Amino acid sequence: MATQINPPRGMRDFLPTDKRRRERVLATIRRVYAAHGFDEIETPVVEDSARLHSGMGGDNEKLSFAVMRRGLDQAALESAASTGNPLELSDLGLRFDLTVPLARFMATHRGNLPTVFRSMQIGPVWRAERPQKGRYRQFVQCDVDILGEPSLLAEAELLIAGSAALGELGLHDCTIRVNDRRLLTCLLEWCGFTAEQQPGALISVDKLDKIGVDGVVAELGEVDAAAAERLREALTGWEPSLATGIPLNTEAILASLPESLRENEQACAAAESLGEIAAAVTAGGGALPLVYDPTLVRGMGYYTGTIFEVAHPASGSSVGGGGRYDGMIGRFLGQDVPACGFSIGFERIVDLVTEQDTDETEAVIALVDKRIPPADAMLLKRALLQPGRRVRLEKRPKNVRNLLDRAASEGFTHVAHLRDEHLANPETITLEPLN
Amino acid sequence: MATQINPPRGMRDFLPTDKRRRERVLATIRRVYAAHGFDEIETPVVEDSARLHSGMGGDNEKLSFAVMRRGLDQAALESAASTGNPLELSDLGLRFDLTVPLARFMATHRGNLPTVFRSMQIGPVWRAERPQKGRYRQFVQCDVDILGEPSLLAEAELLIAGSAALGELGLHDCTIRVNDRRLLTCLLEWCGFTAEQQPGALISVDKLDKIGVDGVVAELGEVDAAAAERLREALTGWEPSLATGIPLNTEAILASLPESLRENEQACAAAESLGEIAAAVTAGGGALPLVYDPTLVRGMGYYTGTIFEVAHPASGSSVGGGGRYDGMIGRFLGQDVPACGFSIGFERIVDLVTEQDTDETEAVIALVDKRIPPADAMLLKRALLQPGRRVRLEKRPKNVRNLLDRAASEGFTHVAHLRDEHLANPETITLEPLN
Repeated sequence: MATQINPPRGMRDFLPTDKRRRERVLATIRRVYAAHGFDEIETPVVEDSARLHSGMGGDNEKLSFAVMRRGLDQAALESAASTGNPLELSDLGLRFDLTVPLARFMATHRGNLPTVFRSMQIGPVWRAERPQKGRYRQFVQCDVDILGEPSLLAEAELLIAGSAALGELGLHDCTIRVNDRRLLTCLLEWCGFTAEQQPGALISVDKLDKIGVDGVVAELGEVDAAAAERLREALTGWEPSLATGIPLNTEAILASLPESLRENEQACAAAESLGEIAAAVTAGGGALPLVYDPTLVRGMGYYTGTIFEVAHPASGSSVGGGGRYDGMIGRFLGQDVPACGFSIGFERIVDLVTEQDTDETEAVIALVDKRIPPADAMLLKRALLQPGRRVRLEKRPKNVRNLLDRAASEGFTHVAHLRDEHLANPETITLEPLN
Repeated sequence: MATQINPPRGMRDFLPTDKRRRERVLATIRRVYAAHGFDEIETPVVEDSARLHSGMGGDNEKLSFAVMRRGLDQAALESAASTGNPLELSDLGLRFDLTVPLARFMATHRGNLPTVFRSMQIGPVWRAERPQKGRYRQFVQCDVDILGEPSLLAEAELLIAGSAALGELGLHDCTIRVNDRRLLTCLLEWCGFTAEQQPGALISVDKLDKIGVDGVVAELGEVDAAAAERLREALTGWEPSLATGIPLNTEAILASLPESLRENEQACAAAESLGEIAAAVTAGGGALPLVYDPTLVRGMGYYTGTIFEVAHPASGSSVGGGGRYDGMIGRFLGQDVPACGFSIGFERIVDLVTEQDTDETEAVIALVDKRIPPADAMLLKRALLQPGRRVRLEKRPKNVRNLLDRAASEGFTHVAHLRDEHLANPETITLEPLN
């Protein structure tokens, strides 16, 4: 007797309807990014353990799936038992993001890539997280990165291409929230947090939407009460404009800062850079509105400048994001490579997209008699095939209605009732709409 | 200092030009299979170890990459050390083919699939083989399978769709060699091999193209000298026609058999079935020639009827193949499911394909001044963007020739020299062909 059999925990199968939607969305993203000059690359799904655990992946490193060495012998097993370290038995791991592989790829192929390399990567990653609604252990990431461009041309091209992709998918209600890590640093310094306290303070600010101003101030009050109170002052000032965001231009950004920061050199530079990015995105026809969100942090520790995140009213969490992370991509290469990236939250957007399939005009159920000779069936099917049309042969069952209802739910649009008389005159076959 | 860094052993990165070609070939295969009524599905890249090691994968099971359980503790490590069995520490493994996952998928989703399910699967698989030229540890398989169809309609649809895909890729020089396991069984019985000896005898016959008739007879002579000599008789009779194959029709097939087999009931049934398949493929417009190859075996033990293999003059090994394997897909489901499949050897054909990119009409290098303000650069790039065109922005280097030569080698077709005067009149931008 068969027992219930499922895919591995936290992972999913995709049935035809879902798979078709996913591939359609990915094809649109690929097409738009390619048009904007991004070149797709691919790396193996596994990387050497040493590189996966080199500190670039933050907390995700702990969530990686380890692959066992082949041909492990008794001695290796005993050694691992004596040290208590299972990672001794592993030489490879499934990638937990596409950024560590990109850094490795750059170290391998730098000489064969353009000076400014616009990378597109679309592929699955794996994280051994506790499975929960909307969190999977295998999921697809869609990353674009511009490597080797120190100026904000990189930010502008990424935001234009990213918003073009989301716009092409019909997600016109997205808003891109933008900030600069340098503004956050100025703010925390102004509050009085030391350089050592700042990473922890950022983690607290990042929780603002969950725990509110009081929560953030309470957490940081334990670190430095006076600094936490100054932070309250800034956050409270911003609170009314957080829902809609602050216009992304240099004047509005500076005006929103605590007064004594408005002439701070680094703050002014960052505000000007954000203003220039906004102007460039507008000039380039950016398809989505940009706003300044002074409380935007982005989780990863590696960001060094501009950061951005895409919000959509139908999604509780962001549907995309990225930023500048100079200094990381060059780690394996042994030299600095300026870098800026943008990632679409594919698993979050794929269900929001209602885009129609534009390549396919008709999907036809070709109904034949149960006892039809194979050559006749093939002849009739052949007569139906034409570009932009999908044809599925079905033997006529007792309950045709059932079959056609199911086919309609699978996206079929027409039925052709094929009969012997069509053999001599296939041009007389007619399609009837399904519904 | 940077040391040489490579992808994991036996695995490959794909740079933009290769990746683009691979995706283009896959898109063609997807499009043709979808038109012929196949529905794409996707399963996770890992499956439970128990299922991967259930005997359906043959020798490939030994080549699977094992994934370690998460959170292994001291006790687990000590237990594995005491039993000497590393697989105790693994709960999942990377799939080594797409057939075991398909069997698992059918067991999970049978109720949500059409009675006759035409499955398409395109994705990577992993085998820890000794890396060598043309053999990789991660490679892509493209499988179509028809599940639930006991008649040779399945064989016909697969051969028509498969040859349409290869034809669409321009591989018109392919030949499909066809045989039926039942004919091989009749032959081995006629020689005098017992049922127990037959699987081994098939393995020897499968080596015919490597070791020749004498080699096969020598190997099997150690099993049964008289039977081996009868096999020599049959093989020698076929030898002259093996290079071109025997016409795939019932009469020619029967005529090619040892005389006393020509009225054997099972042999006649198989020869008739092959003849009907050929007729159906012709009626359906099969794009490639079919021939009968009485010595075709196909490696896997699970085939039960028709088998086929695609040969191409530029490839030493087959570029595709498949066959009927009733009895296997239903293993996890606990009930029989007739099954027939066809697999394109993607890694072998991708280098044979010279198909042009038909979607993209122009690929443009947009050359701008090094010091151009970002907003101006974005405005000019925007003016160049249009459907079917790819635009890469480049800052004008000292050696423009170098840059353009490299771009041409990457597939770029045009250059646009962008200047300040274009800002007010972007419609005056002209494209110059590259080369």
